[in-house]
Amino acid sequence: MPKQNLRIPGPTVVPDEILAEMARPMINHRGPEFAAILRRVTARLQYFFQTRSPVLTYPASGTGGQESAIVNLFSPGDHVVAITIGSFGNRFARIAETYGLQVSRIEFPWGEGADPDVVESRLKTLPPYRGVLVTHNETSTGVTNDIQTLASLIRRHNPDALIAVDAVSSLGCIPLEMDLWDLDVVFTGSQKGWMSPPGVMMIAASERAWQANKSAKLPRFYFDWASSRKKLEAGQHPTTPAVSVFYALDRALELMLEEGREAIFERHRHAGEYVRRRAREMGLELFANPRYASNTVTAVRLPEGFNTKAFMKALREQDGVVLGGGQEHLEGKIFRVGHLGYFREEDLAEAMDKVEQRLRSFGFTGR
Amino acid sequence: MPKQNLRIPGPTVVPDEILAEMARPMINHRGPEFAAILRRVTARLQYFFQTRSPVLTYPASGTGGQESAIVNLFSPGDHVVAITIGSFGNRFARIAETYGLQVSRIEFPWGEGADPDVVESRLKTLPPYRGVLVTHNETSTGVTNDIQTLASLIRRHNPDALIAVDAVSSLGCIPLEMDLWDLDVVFTGSQKGWMSPPGVMMIAASERAWQANKSAKLPRFYFDWASSRKKLEAGQHPTTPAVSVFYALDRALELMLEEGREAIFERHRHAGEYVRRRAREMGLELFANPRYASNTVTAVRLPEGFNTKAFMKALREQDGVVLGGGQEHLEGKIFRVGHLGYFREEDLAEAMDKVEQRLRSFGFTGR
Repeated sequence: MPKQNLRIPGPTVVPDEILAEMARPMINHRGPEFAAILRRVTARLQYFFQTRSPVLTYPASGTGGQESAIVNLFSPGDHVVAITIGSFGNRFARIAETYGLQVSRIEFPWGEGADPDVVESRLKTLPPYRGVLVTHNETSTGVTNDIQTLASLIRRHNPDALIAVDAVSSLGCIPLEMDLWDLDVVFTGSQKGWMSPPGVMMIAASERAWQANKSAKLPRFYFDWASSRKKLEAGQHPTTPAVSVFYALDRALELMLEEGREAIFERHRHAGEYVRRRAREMGLELFANPRYASNTVTAVRLPEGFNTKAFMKALREQDGVVLGGGQEHLEGKIFRVGHLGYFREEDLAEAMDKVEQRLRSFGFTGR
Repeated sequence: MPKQNLRIPGPTVVPDEILAEMARPMINHRGPEFAAILRRVTARLQYFFQTRSPVLTYPASGTGGQESAIVNLFSPGDHVVAITIGSFGNRFARIAETYGLQVSRIEFPWGEGADPDVVESRLKTLPPYRGVLVTHNETSTGVTNDIQTLASLIRRHNPDALIAVDAVSSLGCIPLEMDLWDLDVVFTGSQKGWMSPPGVMMIAASERAWQANKSAKLPRFYFDWASSRKKLEAGQHPTTPAVSVFYALDRALELMLEEGREAIFERHRHAGEYVRRRAREMGLELFANPRYASNTVTAVRLPEGFNTKAFMKALREQDGVVLGGGQEHLEGKIFRVGHLGYFREEDLAEAMDKVEQRLRSFGFTGR
């Protein structure tokens, strides 16, 4: 298989030196070598979560983070507000309903961010609520919510609300300050901004969330926080962790510290601007409201009647450029470009050049 | 770090050629390359599960298999029987209780297998039950239950019982015929008999279990079977799979097919006999009742007052041999030798030689 320019919003490209870590031999997950890795990884994750709370890890995908937040915070019948702006926000709400919560949705059209004024006025009309579920970066639409503003208005309206933030495709790429912004739960996945393969979900909870956890009655075992925290203090995980992904994360976090948190944010800002500019220059329309455009994933609208399937197939098979497709009702109508985690400027330039050439070969000459 | 002789019952040693697969670049988990791997892996897993049912996979540890079985089969208040012979059997029962099931335990002392006669007479005294949870190979004690006999007597007593079998540390190593023995749920983990790193849990359900799944009311999302099956038919996983572990499993299953199912069973039988014989020859006592001795993990009793901690530390640090310790009340009283998945005779011989020498240096000369 020729080397691909993998430009989907996760799993993201893993640099060779981190891939090499994946090939390291197994060790005892209850022994001192793993304990050292686990302690190092979780301390460094705290730095990127910008929290003093312990960061727990689970062998799971990002969806496991959504489920873990729900089952550890709430009791059956609890009323929660779900601010949804796309597919992953809807999934978060659906998990809450699956577990018997009363969910009030504050929905925005796909491509839009959550307007703080609308959220504030809607919150005032709702009966008392125990928590708010919100997406930081909606991977399905390439939209980043202004979590700082949203969290602050939610907190003003309901000081005890449990604010659970899906930061799967933003954390480590886009600024998010868990403690300073007073967020209660934040989670992400190894395959997004962390330059590592999928397999590890990371989640942190505020002191308020830990208090809520004590009385939360939803059943939980695999994703239980209390047992994970207890084991973490002993340098272990309650069950068998995805050892190889820890090798990768250990090295990835070292590289991220070398690059520097602010420099990483800047690199992503630059990438977002670059991809959006290139798409606009091709005459394509960006799917997201520019005010909320994401710096980790860009969704680009294709013209009505365009043969998206053949276009993406040609890009993949002939050009080696792999893009993300549209989800649900956006299938065939948009493509998505991932620019998070590891990438070099020339990777993005090559991808966008190929997109441009391939569009032309499909008869698209701009609008 | 010098090369270790990792002799714990999981994560098990991964051969170099499979480790090399772990270092392969990421691909689109919704693209054709991953679909091909997923289809190949699940078809080959069916061969080793000896089932015509689809084998579903989840980014999870073996404990995730226990939880997945419970939440997909049962409704709150359902009465289930848990046949427990050690730590992992107890965990299975505890998860059922956590999810609000009524659990009747049929317990046997650690080191013993589940005596079919005792199980049969106990079942007759119990109120109607919906399912039975049972461990095939109890990793904490090195005991293998006679699942074929147990399943057949349960089926005689209750033709509709849902028989859920924890085969985490047995499947692919010790004979288990899911369909022929009429088992309803069987699950395992990549880090045990499959010569692969941890991160993927595999689970299959019988037609009876799929019927039960339709009316099972326990809440579930992450571990839901129906959504996994639907996505599997499209060559995908509902959420992001642990792509690298699939690369490993793909190669591992190829190697396992080359070696042959019966040859693998024979290799494990031989390994079990070898490790037990060596331990007895050293004057050590085996923890498990020989009638139920496991061919994947051997638990060995140490003399009263023996400095187990220092012994295992010396073995690890000076001899490069890593053994498993005792769990719960067995901590410090036994050590466990893993002989499952990938091993060569000389690995086991080296480990047992080192154990023998180290015992001598600790003043143990047999009893």
